[in-house]
Amino acid sequence: MSISIKSPADFHVHLRQGSICRLITPHVRKGGFDLAYVMPNLKPPIVNTEQALAYKAELERIDPDVEYLMALYLSPELTPDEIRKAKKAGIVGVKSYPRGVTTNSDGGIESYETYYPIFEVMQQVDMVLNLHGEVPSDPAANIHVLNAEPTFLPHLFKIHAAFPNLHIVLEHATTRAAVEAVKKCGPTVACSITAHHLALIVDDWAGQSWHFCKPVAKFPDDRQALRDVVKAVEGKGHPRFFLGSDSAPHPPHTKSTSSPTHACAAGVYTSPILLPLVAHLLESFGALDKLESFVSTNGRTFYKRPVEDEKGSRTVTIQRTSTRTLVDAEYALGNDRLVPFWAGKEIGWEIVHWEAYG
Amino acid sequence: MSISIKSPADFHVHLRQGSICRLITPHVRKGGFDLAYVMPNLKPPIVNTEQALAYKAELERIDPDVEYLMALYLSPELTPDEIRKAKKAGIVGVKSYPRGVTTNSDGGIESYETYYPIFEVMQQVDMVLNLHGEVPSDPAANIHVLNAEPTFLPHLFKIHAAFPNLHIVLEHATTRAAVEAVKKCGPTVACSITAHHLALIVDDWAGQSWHFCKPVAKFPDDRQALRDVVKAVEGKGHPRFFLGSDSAPHPPHTKSTSSPTHACAAGVYTSPILLPLVAHLLESFGALDKLESFVSTNGRTFYKRPVEDEKGSRTVTIQRTSTRTLVDAEYALGNDRLVPFWAGKEIGWEIVHWEAYG
Repeated sequence: MSISIKSPADFHVHLRQGSICRLITPHVRKGGFDLAYVMPNLKPPIVNTEQALAYKAELERIDPDVEYLMALYLSPELTPDEIRKAKKAGIVGVKSYPRGVTTNSDGGIESYETYYPIFEVMQQVDMVLNLHGEVPSDPAANIHVLNAEPTFLPHLFKIHAAFPNLHIVLEHATTRAAVEAVKKCGPTVACSITAHHLALIVDDWAGQSWHFCKPVAKFPDDRQALRDVVKAVEGKGHPRFFLGSDSAPHPPHTKSTSSPTHACAAGVYTSPILLPLVAHLLESFGALDKLESFVSTNGRTFYKRPVEDEKGSRTVTIQRTSTRTLVDAEYALGNDRLVPFWAGKEIGWEIVHWEAYG
Repeated sequence: MSISIKSPADFHVHLRQGSICRLITPHVRKGGFDLAYVMPNLKPPIVNTEQALAYKAELERIDPDVEYLMALYLSPELTPDEIRKAKKAGIVGVKSYPRGVTTNSDGGIESYETYYPIFEVMQQVDMVLNLHGEVPSDPAANIHVLNAEPTFLPHLFKIHAAFPNLHIVLEHATTRAAVEAVKKCGPTVACSITAHHLALIVDDWAGQSWHFCKPVAKFPDDRQALRDVVKAVEGKGHPRFFLGSDSAPHPPHTKSTSSPTHACAAGVYTSPILLPLVAHLLESFGALDKLESFVSTNGRTFYKRPVEDEKGSRTVTIQRTSTRTLVDAEYALGNDRLVPFWAGKEIGWEIVHWEAYG
């Protein structure tokens, strides 16, 4: 059995910098995708048009056959003028990180009202606001990694109410509460879901740092809500929910917690196996027929990136693996290595064919 | 400032086997304790009187100055006759592990009714039932590591109702729900609390396997409930809540999660710093005046092990560290090493004096 998917698009991916960037950027296509919505949390973060275009050019030098959609990092440096400039330069969105909740988010935001003038212009010029939807942990208020996302949702409603025409994506939703919240919002609010959050629950990262990411995987009932919305009764799943892998590699020495004094880096690396992995997972809960809408058309519709562009569409064909096929154990990176999600695990699908633009 | 505590007693500790046992058994006294309630989850588990007495003799050869209270591992092998025999031999309790929830619990129980004939005899002869109060995770029923303890509590109520005179200890409670459940029960039901669960919350073990143990540390509000019950308004904290460290060392290679395919071992190792650590933690939430009741008299009263025995009482004196004092980074163990909780971290108290029996 084989399935052909038109122009898979990953609407949330970390392509990093330097040698890691050179290794993993080609993994976007290796994983079956030719569009990557690229996260701006570099060191230093991508805060203006110039930096974003330079980063995009670097990515295009590494693999020119992927369409890179760029986003700026929301910070006090950002001005309404810069938003207009960015829009003209083809930059698609602005990513908001609450302070301190994930990799390189030290410069993240603390209050959203401060940014209303920015959101106003983004709404005018039609740029997308990408929200990392967690509040920082606060033991005194009983806020922790497991309720950080539900606690964030009032911010989503408030921003949406203030800017009803602003296109907002709640990124990497992990909870039933988040799914319900996005459903309640109007057509300008969408939601990305990672592959790994369709697979993992809290038990999977308890004592297993390779499954540790932010937001952390939640409870079985939350995973069920994510699966249900992908599968949704209508023909194409729920149209405002789509794949954003949040693929985020870290070298093993930062993923291992062999040090009793340092926690490991948060992130799961799915890029090189992404389309087969999503097919495998969707099949596991009876949603394989939603594969194209989840990995391509839903997101492309929301972002106004039609499947067919001036070059036509590109088709990727996957087929069920006939023999026991294992996910690569690792990828060499100088003297270090990167380890993908599901390393060494059996996977039921593989990419067999890329059709050129036609 | 110094504080003298009469006969500190650790009512839940793992002393392991072989070379680890020889290293850590002396750490009971190093940590300020001269009574250890010893867990039976060895390989193979301690399922009868003969094994328990042999293990006790081994521990006494390593350090004869600690009183070891022994427990059997609840399993289908256990008979009413064996309970009577164990009681006569001075064995104090029987430990129940739900199947598969922690280290060496593969032989744990699945249904409690099966053991009612055992509980009946235990009630008659006055042996203590030590409950690991978690149910196994079951994604289909939305049961996971964070609600495994609250979901267990109906079993506690049911056993207590069926055997109101049976002395039961709900071990290493981690949730507000567990604290409330034990409070609701009669005077035959008590609760042990570890030192590390007074310190940690879920955020602390997210990506940090050295803080990963079973039961996992829960939410800030749960930690507050544990702290509150230790501190309780009455003079001595709540009398049915007391220290059981659940100190459980694992070698670094099993605590590190450098392997993407294997989760790390569950357990936190507090024995060698236990009394200073508990003093430090109690002081942090204003309960230093409850130190003696929490680490000695409450548990000793429940277990009928008076502070003063035929040899009198032993007193341990701790004092506030005058210079910056750090917890040992590790203890050599052949070619390996054991790493204690809070390794390298500053600690505010140290043991300065052991008074001999008098």
